[in-house]
Amino acid sequence: MPSNPSFATRSVYLDHQAATPLLPEVFEAMRPFFTDAYGSASSLHQHGLRARDALAQARERIAAFIQAESPEEIIFTSDGTESANLAVKGTAWASQNRGRHVVASAIEHPAVLSSVQFLEQQGFKSTRLTVNSEGLIDPKVLRAALTDQTILVAVHHANHDLGTIQPVKDLAAVTVDRGTPLFVDAEASAGWLPIDVRAMGADLLSFSPHRFQGPKGVGVLYRHRRARLSSLLHGGVQEEGRRAGTENIPAIVGAGVAAEIAGRELTKRVEHVAWLQQRLWEGLQTRVPYLKLNGPAPGPQRLAAQLNLSVEFVEGEGLLLMLDTRGIAVASGTSCVSKALKVSHVLTAIELPHSLGQAAILISLGPENTREEIDYVLETFPRIVAKLRAMSPMWDEFERGAVDSLIAPRAGKILLSSPPSPRGAGRGGQGEG
Amino acid sequence: MPSNPSFATRSVYLDHQAATPLLPEVFEAMRPFFTDAYGSASSLHQHGLRARDALAQARERIAAFIQAESPEEIIFTSDGTESANLAVKGTAWASQNRGRHVVASAIEHPAVLSSVQFLEQQGFKSTRLTVNSEGLIDPKVLRAALTDQTILVAVHHANHDLGTIQPVKDLAAVTVDRGTPLFVDAEASAGWLPIDVRAMGADLLSFSPHRFQGPKGVGVLYRHRRARLSSLLHGGVQEEGRRAGTENIPAIVGAGVAAEIAGRELTKRVEHVAWLQQRLWEGLQTRVPYLKLNGPAPGPQRLAAQLNLSVEFVEGEGLLLMLDTRGIAVASGTSCVSKALKVSHVLTAIELPHSLGQAAILISLGPENTREEIDYVLETFPRIVAKLRAMSPMWDEFERGAVDSLIAPRAGKILLSSPPSPRGAGRGGQGEG
Repeated sequence: MPSNPSFATRSVYLDHQAATPLLPEVFEAMRPFFTDAYGSASSLHQHGLRARDALAQARERIAAFIQAESPEEIIFTSDGTESANLAVKGTAWASQNRGRHVVASAIEHPAVLSSVQFLEQQGFKSTRLTVNSEGLIDPKVLRAALTDQTILVAVHHANHDLGTIQPVKDLAAVTVDRGTPLFVDAEASAGWLPIDVRAMGADLLSFSPHRFQGPKGVGVLYRHRRARLSSLLHGGVQEEGRRAGTENIPAIVGAGVAAEIAGRELTKRVEHVAWLQQRLWEGLQTRVPYLKLNGPAPGPQRLAAQLNLSVEFVEGEGLLLMLDTRGIAVASGTSCVSKALKVSHVLTAIELPHSLGQAAILISLGPENTREEIDYVLETFPRIVAKLRAMSPMWDEFERGAVDSLIAPRAGKILLSSPPSPRGAGRGGQGEG
Repeated sequence: MPSNPSFATRSVYLDHQAATPLLPEVFEAMRPFFTDAYGSASSLHQHGLRARDALAQARERIAAFIQAESPEEIIFTSDGTESANLAVKGTAWASQNRGRHVVASAIEHPAVLSSVQFLEQQGFKSTRLTVNSEGLIDPKVLRAALTDQTILVAVHHANHDLGTIQPVKDLAAVTVDRGTPLFVDAEASAGWLPIDVRAMGADLLSFSPHRFQGPKGVGVLYRHRRARLSSLLHGGVQEEGRRAGTENIPAIVGAGVAAEIAGRELTKRVEHVAWLQQRLWEGLQTRVPYLKLNGPAPGPQRLAAQLNLSVEFVEGEGLLLMLDTRGIAVASGTSCVSKALKVSHVLTAIELPHSLGQAAILISLGPENTREEIDYVLETFPRIVAKLRAMSPMWDEFERGAVDSLIAPRAGKILLSSPPSPRGAGRGGQGEG
């Protein structure tokens, strides 16, 4: 819903990794806890009891969503960032007498990597696991990184940037073998991949319900009862003393309902977005030359809900802003660092050339997206790319043969009304009159 | 609204220090940001812009509420507990090269004192300032506690348990003199006392809008631009890098609106609750013998919105539960630790005898309370006290002259339908047939 009247009235939201619309039924479930059942769950009277009942029910729903053995294994926090901070720092502080070495992949979310950096300032050592060109973590690389001093391994279920689905069970086989606690960041996967914390072998696992149409202001940390964990926020005895602060009951209620719905509808939602993903990717490949998909091809190794694309000779930020003028909302880099205008550390870690990192955009789908919306994108996106390339000095040099493309054009698939030839063709070749 | 049908249908909510009903106009302001304007403030597109505009407006409103020089001095967190943790730990971490000694009063909120304890585990030293019998911090005691190593002084604006209003300007005169950063916890005072961070001399100041009919899930930390502060939550670059995590826009919007209303209506609200406080206290004094007000008398040294009462020979928890059966919601001890069933550390610090600590309840008023509700309490409370005393072995011993009261009865003011005489009178003397 653009506020600038000169902008498109059309609105196609494809930035679900940054934020999602709250489901109306989730909002309705939250509503009574704002103005009516407003008590604190710590209070002993009836108002507190009602809050506690709601809290307990939400905890059960979240536990069921990830197959936890007991609701007591669920800790509510304020968001996924806090959950990841608690997992990493809380484990390190609780176990520092055993050792002071932590291991994380090089492509974890900033919430994990910055927490590890913080620990380094406090005297901990760390190892960053390299990944392959599709962002996959190799269990052998993990095994080689572990030492007698390692007290935590942090990996993600699926990558927030590349959509890569990690072989968590294989990674867990390594950590279980060594008796090292495993923290799995499921921020990007929750709602899109089934999560079974026990089958997965996770000692700790975090996610944010706002990624699957739950509310902002609540995060989840699963903690296996054997996992040692210090608090990050100190004060009252909420969350069994593991997270002080008045519980955000409306958001926690919403989290429970959103998780229940996401669990029930997961297969249907995945089928829907996978179909849209395929249509979008095939359509864009056909219509936009010099386009690279970062991360695995659509299929079992990639989240169904997103595409990370490098559009060569185009700045990702510029493309984002132009798409926005046509009512299409996407991200460039990761949403959390996009204000910093730096190439995502994930794209750097897979050794994507810098120019292709600058040219990257992230399209993330949601259950409410439609085929019609995707078709609108397929119509609009290539025109905007052509327009931006027409203004790009790099594209001009490329057309004059002064620089090479880093991406092999998909021969025979490059077209629009008048398809550009990679070398020497006129600038007008890509349409958008 | 009791859910047990055998309970009173009457509902008198007097636990505003634990939680408050969200104002309907605050809820209406938040509503569009749930299902409609759901974008992340970090996103560069129109959805993100709308979230950023809302965030900026809320920041301005909060800055105005506490007379901050600039909205940039406002950091949004998830609640008051996080704000206090960030203030205490963030200052300590940022300044540990200058010194490793922190000073806090003995009656700070658990969020502050537990954060100080955590720092002690990390090798910091601390000093707890003693207070007088009414909970007042003496600037001379503060001056004596400061050393060359002191990097933070943490005091509160008003005490959450006793309602005591601290001489913050006098305390700030001491810290300014020594060049020591001052953190003021305004959790209990925000909405009830005008806050002017500059006049007050606070370098850091925290509060929760949910204490004054704003939403849960958001806290505020004011930070003077000169105050050194490390992050507590690491990850994205939100809040100028000082608090990572997707901003809880609906709650932040609600916080801004609640602060604006609270600021505008402060005088009216205070007059209203001060009148109710006076009526309640005078009425209870007249009707309940062996009753002690903890903290200063109603007036300029006490928050207008609360009464902390020790009802001798009665357990506070039992009284709370009995009041609840009549639809009256109060707290015993502080809400954050009431599950722990321990006498509040505040009551211990003012050297209240243990039996009177166990007998304490906290009644906290809100703008929506009415004279009629207070009169219902004045009618109900004495009967319940009489009933509980009639069941109390201690009261029995007291009546038989085996133990003494610690509170002088207010001669000539002790009555109900048939007033009890302090010694030797029959158990039936206090009514409630």
